[in-house]
Amino acid sequence: ATVDKGVDFANYFCTYAFLYHQKDMLSDRVRMDAYFNSVFNNKHHFVGKTVLDVGTGSGILAIWSAQAGAKKVYAVEATKMAKHAHELVKANNLQDVVEVIEGSIEDITLPEKVDVLISEWMGYFLLRESMFDSVICARDRWLKPTGVMYPSHARMWMAPIRSEVADHKMSEYEVCMDDWHGFVTETKSYYGVDMSVLTKPFSEEQKKYYLQNSLWNNLDPNQVVGTATILKEIDCLTVTVDDIIEVKANISSTITKEDTRLCGFGGWFDVHFNGRMENPAECEVELTTAPSIDDGTHWGQQVFLLHPPVRVNKGDEILVNFLMNRSKENHRLMNVDLGYEIKLSSGQMLPPVRNKFYIE
Amino acid sequence: ATVDKGVDFANYFCTYAFLYHQKDMLSDRVRMDAYFNSVFNNKHHFVGKTVLDVGTGSGILAIWSAQAGAKKVYAVEATKMAKHAHELVKANNLQDVVEVIEGSIEDITLPEKVDVLISEWMGYFLLRESMFDSVICARDRWLKPTGVMYPSHARMWMAPIRSEVADHKMSEYEVCMDDWHGFVTETKSYYGVDMSVLTKPFSEEQKKYYLQNSLWNNLDPNQVVGTATILKEIDCLTVTVDDIIEVKANISSTITKEDTRLCGFGGWFDVHFNGRMENPAECEVELTTAPSIDDGTHWGQQVFLLHPPVRVNKGDEILVNFLMNRSKENHRLMNVDLGYEIKLSSGQMLPPVRNKFYIE
Ligand SMILES: Nc1ncnc2c1ncn2[C@@H]1O[C@H](CSCC[C@H](N)C(=O)O)[C@@H](O)[C@H]1O
Ligand SMILES: Nc1ncnc2c1ncn2[C@@H]1O[C@H](CSCC[C@H](N)C(=O)O)[C@@H](O)[C@H]1O
Repeated sequence: ATVDKGVDFANYFCTYAFLYHQKDMLSDRVRMDAYFNSVFNNKHHFVGKTVLDVGTGSGILAIWSAQAGAKKVYAVEATKMAKHAHELVKANNLQDVVEVIEGSIEDITLPEKVDVLISEWMGYFLLRESMFDSVICARDRWLKPTGVMYPSHARMWMAPIRSEVADHKMSEYEVCMDDWHGFVTETKSYYGVDMSVLTKPFSEEQKKYYLQNSLWNNLDPNQVVGTATILKEIDCLTVTVDDIIEVKANISSTITKEDTRLCGFGGWFDVHFNGRMENPAECEVELTTAPSIDDGTHWGQQVFLLHPPVRVNKGDEILVNFLMNRSKENHRLMNVDLGYEIKLSSGQMLPPVRNKFYIE
Repeated sequence: ATVDKGVDFANYFCTYAFLYHQKDMLSDRVRMDAYFNSVFNNKHHFVGKTVLDVGTGSGILAIWSAQAGAKKVYAVEATKMAKHAHELVKANNLQDVVEVIEGSIEDITLPEKVDVLISEWMGYFLLRESMFDSVICARDRWLKPTGVMYPSHARMWMAPIRSEVADHKMSEYEVCMDDWHGFVTETKSYYGVDMSVLTKPFSEEQKKYYLQNSLWNNLDPNQVVGTATILKEIDCLTVTVDDIIEVKANISSTITKEDTRLCGFGGWFDVHFNGRMENPAECEVELTTAPSIDDGTHWGQQVFLLHPPVRVNKGDEILVNFLMNRSKENHRLMNVDLGYEIKLSSGQMLPPVRNKFYIE
């Protein structure tokens, strides 16, 4: 499937051309601290080295790399944000080290291979946006065989949760359908047209909107009602696009709270800055987007809600069958197929349930 | 300038593929009543005739045309909504009269020319979306020389207004800039990067967002503080794309309220269903989107705010120099250049002011 560049810009890149959006990311202290510490506590990876920043945005990671002692930094950015990055580099007196290049990483050419590839490519639930494809492409073309990836590892997590949002969404959906029924009656009586044949497609459209879209949420750790499990582990140095084009996992989670409700599942990710085996980090850094009271991120968690919620109890086991792949219409969005079965601590199995979700 | 079809779909057509959006339009009673009355009070234009509905959406106008006695109706729709229109036609037993065709009106072919071209093509402030281009194209290719346009005429209006939103928007902008200054200070102290060089571009981006975007508003007629003036008159039977690609007008408005504030200008439109000179309507119908307490429409008015507002008084005259043309990046969005001069009733002229606005 080839991607139309113009469409990709209209759907995806356009938002990154706003300073407002870059500022949102630059204001995420958990994100910023992780990258800052990973660079400045591992200067041995940077001093005198060449670095490629894939998707430099405002230029922040390229600037830090230069400040940490890099000899040369290539900072590649697809959008007009490149112009601002260039100004920022100059204002911080790094124009002799950092070279900002406006263009898609897939299209540009560098004069040399690099020692470090740094990038902040993570989307919601890690893989939304599919930007990691571009990082893999850059790695294969421009990273030396001995090169280091920043970050070096990534993991996707999932845990059962409780949430009142499940009830809200269901009642929003019901209000919307009530309104529709009034609309059908009025259109018939005022305008002589019977719209009832559209009730089914309308309800499907609205079900998708209210009930099947995954939601951004900053969960309270208290809302996690069972053990969190790893869905996917990625070694950024060796992973291929084929390895991430689909995420498939059978996991099991045990309910850890007494008499509670299973309202859905929360998904999040973490990434690690460990260097590589032959050239490890001196100080390993982790960036996690797990539920947290004080250390929330702009990624939050993606929540997949169940309708209706199910009563569960401590010791019950949830067997989850997870499949995520890319939307056919837009490879940067994801479809999730989430099946689960509950094995009560009594040993009884509840009937299996399957749900489709959209990460849009 | 050629338009990339995929990009146009991503930016524009996509919204019309949702029943939710079609329902919004179908719930606009002012709009619905106007089209309904124009068709059913002018059956002589429809009985035994052939009709083309450009952009049929749910199919409503095609169905009414058939119910009013048309012999054949071609209902053309670019999006997947065509499928629903087809179902609606069948459910209302009109499949022998109404033929739904999925495709761009620019691309499809009809087996014959038609007697009536009906279309609901109006965007915010009439011309946003530039869909009238498609109607003109359809008219030139498929309307008989004796054919009738529904609607037959359109006008753009403008009037000076007062509005508290001007103050809100300015204070939102100021809060946003305060926040930016805090961000610059923190980024310097925590992360060693001086972002102040981006202050100017950021403030321009935010000024555009908060102060230069025209706003959707349902104005109270009381907010109109001066005489309303016509900016543009269109005869749908004869107008060309060249006539609407740019709207240029010098108009003058007299303040009608004692001691008030000029906070900006409100823009709206009306369309008329008058048939044509040789074949006039029996019952002329008007659809207006002017400020109204009871008869608001989903179009509302477009508001262009001035910062800061200006004190004016009854009898003062506002000379407005209005220029609207299409955005270079997206021909369906508009740029407005709005200059004005105030001639006080004392005869004194205040210095002229020019503002740029975006209808996005
Ligand atoms: N294929 C590609 N080529 C170049 N830039 C890309 C790209 N895919 C995404 N990007 C850019 O990558 C950026 C990701 S957001 C991260 C920005 C910055 N590195 C920071 O950490 O703050 C966006 O600005 C986006 O426009
Ligand atoms: N060039 C084109 N060819 C075909 N359909 C078009 C078009 N430009 C716009 N449209 C369609 O025109 C519709 C305009 S909205 C009006 C819908 C319907 N006639 C009603 O009155 O309720 C949208 O559904 C849009 O997809």
